[in-house]
Amino acid sequence: MSKKHLEKNRSKNPLVHCITNYVTVNDVANMLIACGGAPIMADEASEVEEMTSICDALVLNIGTLNERTVDSMLLAGMKAAELKHPVVLDPVGAGATRLRTETALKLIEKIPMAVIRGNISEIMTLYHGTGSTKGVDASSGDVITEENLEEKIGIARGLSRNTGAVVAITGAIDIVADPTSAYVIRNGHPMMSKVSGTGCMLTAVIASYVAANPDDRAGACAAAIAAMGLSGEMAYERLMKSGGGPSTYRSYIIDAMGNMTQEELEGGMKIEVR
Amino acid sequence: MSKKHLEKNRSKNPLVHCITNYVTVNDVANMLIACGGAPIMADEASEVEEMTSICDALVLNIGTLNERTVDSMLLAGMKAAELKHPVVLDPVGAGATRLRTETALKLIEKIPMAVIRGNISEIMTLYHGTGSTKGVDASSGDVITEENLEEKIGIARGLSRNTGAVVAITGAIDIVADPTSAYVIRNGHPMMSKVSGTGCMLTAVIASYVAANPDDRAGACAAAIAAMGLSGEMAYERLMKSGGGPSTYRSYIIDAMGNMTQEELEGGMKIEVR
Amino acid sequence: MSKKHLEKNRSKNPLVHCITNYVTVNDVANMLIACGGAPIMADEASEVEEMTSICDALVLNIGTLNERTVDSMLLAGMKAAELKHPVVLDPVGAGATRLRTETALKLIEKIPMAVIRGNISEIMTLYHGTGSTKGVDASSGDVITEENLEEKIGIARGLSRNTGAVVAITGAIDIVADPTSAYVIRNGHPMMSKVSGTGCMLTAVIASYVAANPDDRAGACAAAIAAMGLSGEMAYERLMKSGGGPSTYRSYIIDAMGNMTQEELEGGMKIEVR
Repeated sequence: MSKKHLEKNRSKNPLVHCITNYVTVNDVANMLIACGGAPIMADEASEVEEMTSICDALVLNIGTLNERTVDSMLLAGMKAAELKHPVVLDPVGAGATRLRTETALKLIEKIPMAVIRGNISEIMTLYHGTGSTKGVDASSGDVITEENLEEKIGIARGLSRNTGAVVAITGAIDIVADPTSAYVIRNGHPMMSKVSGTGCMLTAVIASYVAANPDDRAGACAAAIAAMGLSGEMAYERLMKSGGGPSTYRSYIIDAMGNMTQEELEGGMKIEVR
Repeated sequence: MSKKHLEKNRSKNPLVHCITNYVTVNDVANMLIACGGAPIMADEASEVEEMTSICDALVLNIGTLNERTVDSMLLAGMKAAELKHPVVLDPVGAGATRLRTETALKLIEKIPMAVIRGNISEIMTLYHGTGSTKGVDASSGDVITEENLEEKIGIARGLSRNTGAVVAITGAIDIVADPTSAYVIRNGHPMMSKVSGTGCMLTAVIASYVAANPDDRAGACAAAIAAMGLSGEMAYERLMKSGGGPSTYRSYIIDAMGNMTQEELEGGMKIEVR
Repeated sequence: MSKKHLEKNRSKNPLVHCITNYVTVNDVANMLIACGGAPIMADEASEVEEMTSICDALVLNIGTLNERTVDSMLLAGMKAAELKHPVVLDPVGAGATRLRTETALKLIEKIPMAVIRGNISEIMTLYHGTGSTKGVDASSGDVITEENLEEKIGIARGLSRNTGAVVAITGAIDIVADPTSAYVIRNGHPMMSKVSGTGCMLTAVIASYVAANPDDRAGACAAAIAAMGLSGEMAYERLMKSGGGPSTYRSYIIDAMGNMTQEELEGGMKIEVR
């Protein structure tokens, strides 16, 4: 199996249909172009099935969901799944409100997801909501550390078993797992937390990479996460030379993704296979 | 007739009401200010007539249309037309879904447009939808080249005859045509395709220029397209000096428009009168 | 009473729930992070009460309001007020359309606001709408100058008496007033008017500062305005060195807020206590 995930993504240039929040949507569009994909945003129920049919992947991001867009997500998701397009869920804020938790669980129930990407709280919420055990173990909500890594991989793998999706938990350390494989990614920079939307952008990049590498979904997901983290590292290095703050840094991250080559990614990625 | 379209735009500072997509809306707002206009975004049916009445031009961009905003576009468009404000249509994705095609055709049918600006596929869709011939000639869907330029001008002119609007087809080469005149614009840079929303931004700049130059709509439209393309060229030159990628480039394009003088535009515009 | 408003804001890191317009929402999110707060955007009626309950402050910005979001603003505002969270209103375009004027007045009537921040026209509209006198005094609609400063402070104080809110009028000179105190702030740079959304960003920064400094709402509001203005000044100075235009300037403003220290703010703020 080829590992040239970035190159394949640039050569296939997947068209990614995004039903996403209006906060970070512009960065998502520009990051998709930068990574080698192409964005289409459309969220009206009466056109999403048609729109997703001409695309290669679908992103469902519940960051600013409302009743109108929940219906659209269901319609688009079921059509995309029917066409074997990868559907990637970003359960923004699952656990924070009942609407978000219930919507994320409903989407998972109705639509076979290719990938679910969230932070540890969001993934814990979905894990418990889809599993037989109820209630959130407080300690499990902690950030991912070297000490609790095995436990968190277990959670990702558990949600993967419950849903059939590759599951990515992102944070200071990132995890990708499916029932048979697991990756730990140690790219990224703490300053990325000063930029709104890095998670949303990453989810879209994952969708593009997975669409371009259908025979290696978990590997493509890990490569996309490494590419995003490496963009953050390269951007930080450039920022230290030029000076500036969080807004300049945001631009530099997108720039870095836009300029990244397969060789740079392979040279800089810190992916551990577990 | 004066050709000082940029200067007039800066001195008249037209207020442009935009009902536009939420993907690129912030860039549209900032580009409008940069070019010399001023933005107002409002899309609620119960206020759009009142809002458009205090403005100088109206942009209807169907990039993320929904049932709510379609009604608002119709109400705002009819009021603006009644007040003789130029209405500029950006039929984003016409041809991609039935909703978009039908909405664009309905807007054209109900509202006398001052300008319609789209890419070749969108304009082909509207041309065939408003004309007596049905079905899209495959070869006509091709990108604009020096070889097929006359044919594409014919299409722009045809849609202009069918609608009364000045028609702009933008791509590697840009065309502006109405029943009696035609312009070919050869400004721009290929890297502009790496930035989401350059088309949306251009449509808003056209609306501002046309509002400021009501006695020369086709000429103002061509000047706006040249100004946008020249901004892309100047931004690219600056990018080659500073380094950076697509996000830095996006900022540089808006910067270039913000700093551009009438003299620079006249010196750099590549407008051929046909 | 401590005056370390910036430091307190950074250490408390208030979570600010924003129901705001889709034009400038991304800049609002990034500016909130830059200033030391944290953003959550959510506007669906069925979740806003729950969402605002886990936050520290609420911003209601009517920049692109629609019928759906007006209901959400009322629900979120009443819940936030019940929980004693500061609610900050940005009455964008009040006076421009009946919907905006009526919505702003209804929000003020139903929700005890901590702060109302607008330009002079918006504040005049609310002042007359909440007061016994009707009709707008034309001269009072003028921009704030050194000559009419006392009169404008009187208007801010009048709206404050009518509503119980701290009232901020921003422009070339900024005013903050409540029934017993008044501040005049003279930071900022004229080029800030070339950037869309500086007002929206400021409103969010005010909400964060007020949440972090509950015992000095007027002072925190004045400090937030000074921090925003000083960011504009520092960004302009940097722009003069690097070159660039309005989009680069926008990034520099957010950068400056992100890098600002309590010492820099105290050294640069031009706040006069009246």
